[in-house]
Amino acid sequence: MKSIKIRTEVERLNEQIKFIAEIEKLKSITRQNITLDNQRPENSAEHSWHVALMAVILSEYANSTIDTFKVLKMLLIHDLVEIDFGDTWLYDEKANSDKVKNETLCAQRLFALLPNDQEQEFIQLWTEFEDCKTAEAKFARAIDSLQPIINHRETGGALVKAQGLTANQVYEKKKNMSDGSDELWKKAQEIIEDCKRLGIFQ
Amino acid sequence: MKSIKIRTEVERLNEQIKFIAEIEKLKSITRQNITLDNQRPENSAEHSWHVALMAVILSEYANSTIDTFKVLKMLLIHDLVEIDFGDTWLYDEKANSDKVKNETLCAQRLFALLPNDQEQEFIQLWTEFEDCKTAEAKFARAIDSLQPIINHRETGGALVKAQGLTANQVYEKKKNMSDGSDELWKKAQEIIEDCKRLGIFQ
Repeated sequence: MKSIKIRTEVERLNEQIKFIAEIEKLKSITRQNITLDNQRPENSAEHSWHVALMAVILSEYANSTIDTFKVLKMLLIHDLVEIDFGDTWLYDEKANSDKVKNETLCAQRLFALLPNDQEQEFIQLWTEFEDCKTAEAKFARAIDSLQPIINHRETGGALVKAQGLTANQVYEKKKNMSDGSDELWKKAQEIIEDCKRLGIFQ
Repeated sequence: MKSIKIRTEVERLNEQIKFIAEIEKLKSITRQNITLDNQRPENSAEHSWHVALMAVILSEYANSTIDTFKVLKMLLIHDLVEIDFGDTWLYDEKANSDKVKNETLCAQRLFALLPNDQEQEFIQLWTEFEDCKTAEAKFARAIDSLQPIINHRETGGALVKAQGLTANQVYEKKKNMSDGSDELWKKAQEIIEDCKRLGIFQ
């Protein structure tokens, strides 16, 4: 029996390492945010880092008591499902019609690389984030909504500016932030107004 | 009294948002790892995401019982101190002589942007990571040591290959991984041997 157990443990770690190597691809998935250096498009890996650390700093503003550790795990994995089909811009209505189908396919393929218990945990965390019904999911989504507008104000937001995005479109897409945090939604509205004044939003 | 309290709360959130905007700069700090897409140098923000998620997946291999939430916070902030002076390559002995001085200066400036309680928390987390005496710090460092060699094997490691890094140098710098996880150090040695066979390490 011992040799079977050892073999299984070795396989378990190999599966985990394979998954860790596979998610290198998230560093090549680009978004509509830009960076400060050469104004390249931000990728979903660095975005995921930013929102996770934001959740640590801003957890006190959640409307309800939250398990911040769970929020962190959600935010660290929330964009992994973009690996196969790319990021879908929030304001691209056409692309958003395929988003659920594509991301579900990617989630199934990707999380299946992990040992079964972790596959189940990650699917559960991702589904909870997408369903946005628990306090943790609502707060995680509020943070995910806040990050781009902080990025736009800081960098000048060249990519969204070029797309002619209006402040009204932003208000419409971001207003659900108040489900996770009234305080952060109040702050977000100030930042949206700043972006309007700076000519980033029309 | 009420107006003073409200003013303080507004200032607190403003300080936090200012810090969140400032750390955009981590996305411009480059490392010796490379990415899969256009083989650009990996930056410290996407590296920080990768190690944080690795810690979630691999926490079962820590030598001692650990608080994984604390490990995540350490890994999310561990490279912020590179923002002012850049990343120091582990194998660059000359640059490493200035590392402590530079990173301490950066930590003092950067964390002071946060409200006092969070400044203290982040300095404590960063110092604990650097001192590497607790179970959490040892495990976080093991993960931080493991990520580059997984990256090299996956991407071909063009930058380290060009520097003529030897497998012996890698063994010497990575061997302390066993303080955090014997299991992961065993796996790391297999990956180092793979990198040697692939001609990434000499």
